[in-house]
Amino acid sequence: MRTKAQPTTAIATSDAERILIRGHDLVEELIGQVSFTEMFLLQLTGKRPTPAQVRVLDTVLVTLMEHGLTPSVIAARLIYHSAPDALQAGVAAGLLGVGSTFIGTMEGCAALLEEMLAAPEGVEARAEAIARRMREAGKPVHGFGHPHHKPDDPRTPRMLAVAEKEGVPGRHIAALRALSTAVDAAYGRHLTVNATGASAALLGEIGIPQKVMRGVAVVSRSAGLVGHIYEESRKPAAAFMWETVDEAIPYQPDA
Amino acid sequence: MRTKAQPTTAIATSDAERILIRGHDLVEELIGQVSFTEMFLLQLTGKRPTPAQVRVLDTVLVTLMEHGLTPSVIAARLIYHSAPDALQAGVAAGLLGVGSTFIGTMEGCAALLEEMLAAPEGVEARAEAIARRMREAGKPVHGFGHPHHKPDDPRTPRMLAVAEKEGVPGRHIAALRALSTAVDAAYGRHLTVNATGASAALLGEIGIPQKVMRGVAVVSRSAGLVGHIYEESRKPAAAFMWETVDEAIPYQPDA
Amino acid sequence: MRTKAQPTTAIATSDAERILIRGHDLVEELIGQVSFTEMFLLQLTGKRPTPAQVRVLDTVLVTLMEHGLTPSVIAARLIYHSAPDALQAGVAAGLLGVGSTFIGTMEGCAALLEEMLAAPEGVEARAEAIARRMREAGKPVHGFGHPHHKPDDPRTPRMLAVAEKEGVPGRHIAALRALSTAVDAAYGRHLTVNATGASAALLGEIGIPQKVMRGVAVVSRSAGLVGHIYEESRKPAAAFMWETVDEAIPYQPDA
Amino acid sequence: MRTKAQPTTAIATSDAERILIRGHDLVEELIGQVSFTEMFLLQLTGKRPTPAQVRVLDTVLVTLMEHGLTPSVIAARLIYHSAPDALQAGVAAGLLGVGSTFIGTMEGCAALLEEMLAAPEGVEARAEAIARRMREAGKPVHGFGHPHHKPDDPRTPRMLAVAEKEGVPGRHIAALRALSTAVDAAYGRHLTVNATGASAALLGEIGIPQKVMRGVAVVSRSAGLVGHIYEESRKPAAAFMWETVDEAIPYQPDA
Repeated sequence: MRTKAQPTTAIATSDAERILIRGHDLVEELIGQVSFTEMFLLQLTGKRPTPAQVRVLDTVLVTLMEHGLTPSVIAARLIYHSAPDALQAGVAAGLLGVGSTFIGTMEGCAALLEEMLAAPEGVEARAEAIARRMREAGKPVHGFGHPHHKPDDPRTPRMLAVAEKEGVPGRHIAALRALSTAVDAAYGRHLTVNATGASAALLGEIGIPQKVMRGVAVVSRSAGLVGHIYEESRKPAAAFMWETVDEAIPYQPDA
Repeated sequence: MRTKAQPTTAIATSDAERILIRGHDLVEELIGQVSFTEMFLLQLTGKRPTPAQVRVLDTVLVTLMEHGLTPSVIAARLIYHSAPDALQAGVAAGLLGVGSTFIGTMEGCAALLEEMLAAPEGVEARAEAIARRMREAGKPVHGFGHPHHKPDDPRTPRMLAVAEKEGVPGRHIAALRALSTAVDAAYGRHLTVNATGASAALLGEIGIPQKVMRGVAVVSRSAGLVGHIYEESRKPAAAFMWETVDEAIPYQPDA
Repeated sequence: MRTKAQPTTAIATSDAERILIRGHDLVEELIGQVSFTEMFLLQLTGKRPTPAQVRVLDTVLVTLMEHGLTPSVIAARLIYHSAPDALQAGVAAGLLGVGSTFIGTMEGCAALLEEMLAAPEGVEARAEAIARRMREAGKPVHGFGHPHHKPDDPRTPRMLAVAEKEGVPGRHIAALRALSTAVDAAYGRHLTVNATGASAALLGEIGIPQKVMRGVAVVSRSAGLVGHIYEESRKPAAAFMWETVDEAIPYQPDA
Repeated sequence: MRTKAQPTTAIATSDAERILIRGHDLVEELIGQVSFTEMFLLQLTGKRPTPAQVRVLDTVLVTLMEHGLTPSVIAARLIYHSAPDALQAGVAAGLLGVGSTFIGTMEGCAALLEEMLAAPEGVEARAEAIARRMREAGKPVHGFGHPHHKPDDPRTPRMLAVAEKEGVPGRHIAALRALSTAVDAAYGRHLTVNATGASAALLGEIGIPQKVMRGVAVVSRSAGLVGHIYEESRKPAAAFMWETVDEAIPYQPDA
């Protein structure tokens, strides 16, 4: 029994001779003429991006691709070791870790920026209110602080500088800077704006909605994970990881 | 009990001030200076790619990103509908379909090209032997034929033309053309070289090993799937897909 | 740099001759002596369950295993079709759909039951408050209502009867019945308690914490999905599903 | 354009009052009357199993559920740590490791047993031929040997004894014993029959086809993984695993 109205898709259609993606002929207009990043923006938004938008998205994709032996990478290499004939499963296992614990801070920071940009009392006033609110709740501010990159995350100024050089509108970046000032004042010490905070601002600048920002991280990480899986295929480390973890965590029955 | 020698990783390391990826300082040398595709090649191969290699990889990544409501896309949209707070799970579910049925033909074609390029009797002679072998076994030749794009897959000539314009060495493309000639002769009719066949040749030209080619498809598809999940969030189709499938497949007990 | 204290695991350990799980010798005490369901409860809780607890968990596991061509099943069959040499990927893709949309109602209902059982003013008074709260918010009450099983979900009375016959303490079931009475009064019509509501009560009765209830559904569904994948291997339906969905959803460009 | 004939499903159907699974009324005939394991066999094979078949499947499901901090478990705990609001993703990530490396030996052993049972020259003669073939190829025999459980895997005799006590036909077990004798003779030393070898024989005895045996392991492991994820939620170990692995594997650039 059908109960749902018929939906449509605006992404793609094809016949024997032609593949249309977002209204553009794949063969005549896209292959050989656009980069992966330009195509990704077209696929996502339905519009041909400007060169500045492409470079800003590249900045985020390049920044998030790789950061050593993270939980995602370890999971991907262990699963690839367990199922080497299904490379896609190793990547998928790792991508399942692009979740609330790490990427949630990007989404959370984006939500704060949108709250500030929509506040009738103005960006600075709302930034101060947010910083006080987080401070009083004893919570970390999304997009601020880093366990290793102290006192400052070296990626952040670079990312913001690239976006500003590209001439983005600048509202999200200005909001992030206002929040940073308010956070330092409320906490009485300097907290770095980390790379996920900077990513939230940059993606906001090029019109990526908050709810799909996690998808940008997924795409970037997929490339990072393929690199690790290829290394695993040539220099196996997963069996050693397994032994190392097993040895490091002793058995102790519940009392 | 440790039994494995200690492995190392050549991909990344970091300290408080610096992140090194493949020997390059992420902040000083990469962010704002390289595209996603260039970074992906560096991550994968450990070497800075040439501009031609980047454009050839872009060609494959752009070609494979999107082809309508494929099994991967349907799975991704259904899973996103079921777990909308875990966007990464929708993408991962779809990527699990980048397997032997569809991408296997890319890998299979790459294996044929490598067999031809290594053959002591020469590329043409081996191409003829392969075409006869497949014909006699009644098997499809990997990288040839397409259910919809007949008589010719429109993507293929474009992809090959882009690569040739970029001045790639051309051995894999020449092998693919030789195989095409031999296949048409052996089968007594024209079989199109499809986009997975062309992808195998292009990735071979830029030195991507056959065993990791599936990873290139995974990265490209991840972007396509994020686009579909974003559309699903604004124009839901998954519940309609479910009803449609449920209604189309009747219950019939085993005899 | 290590910053975390060393954790321990209370689940299992082994040496050359012996495997201990939750303090029990796998070979001497478990294999051939306990059922899957008994073993699952031991694995999860660390304690040998009573026969009543086992039968109540079996009731939930049997109820949730299968309900036709659901989104999870369709995803699993499509992915198995795409990667038939990686059966585990088909199951995993389907399990990724055991998320907030469907199983969330079980968790939500469990949370309501726990709220009622902890209320100082008593179960009935809190039930009425909850029903009013949900009614005023215009929200569905978790565990109530069903699109197809109207006016009553036939599974629910059976599930509750089995648990009561097994002599469970009965507090969660009583709370669910009180909530049902309050919901019918607040909404002015009868809303069925559905199978996820009944599952929440039964799992509460045997001490399964709300946060891991989703895991019970995952285990049950894994068996259902393996059944569908085996059917797919003998009577392929995935390619037909794909064509059917593709044909049913037309391309329509954004305005 | 439809090209596929309409398939049917023999698994389930439902209307407002009734859910039929494999021809049985879920409420009237199954809930409260069958165990999970009995239901799983009905779902998979379409037939009500005998009590002996249920106990043999329970034997395999109980044996494979848990074996400490395996790659699957480590992956599941890392992913749960990264996305704690999506428990199903942690389980799915772990299940993706039920692949060729570990479970492949069960399938490989089942294939050998089927080869022996179909051999015109008889089981013993084919067992000797197989053992010689493997020995000469320098390959391990699927289902034989174990890195830790030496000289004998303690699970195996127990599993076989349970099945024999249940009065299974015994052809697959006899084939496994014949293979064991032949392997010991060909290799000139005793190789243990491991638990995956015993599982292959037991599943063969109850008519589970080789191609779906991996699914039995997936179901069993799903329960094991839920136990680990619940422990992770109360006694977090994933962040420690991450630090431990990161510290144990140094960065060393390619030469």
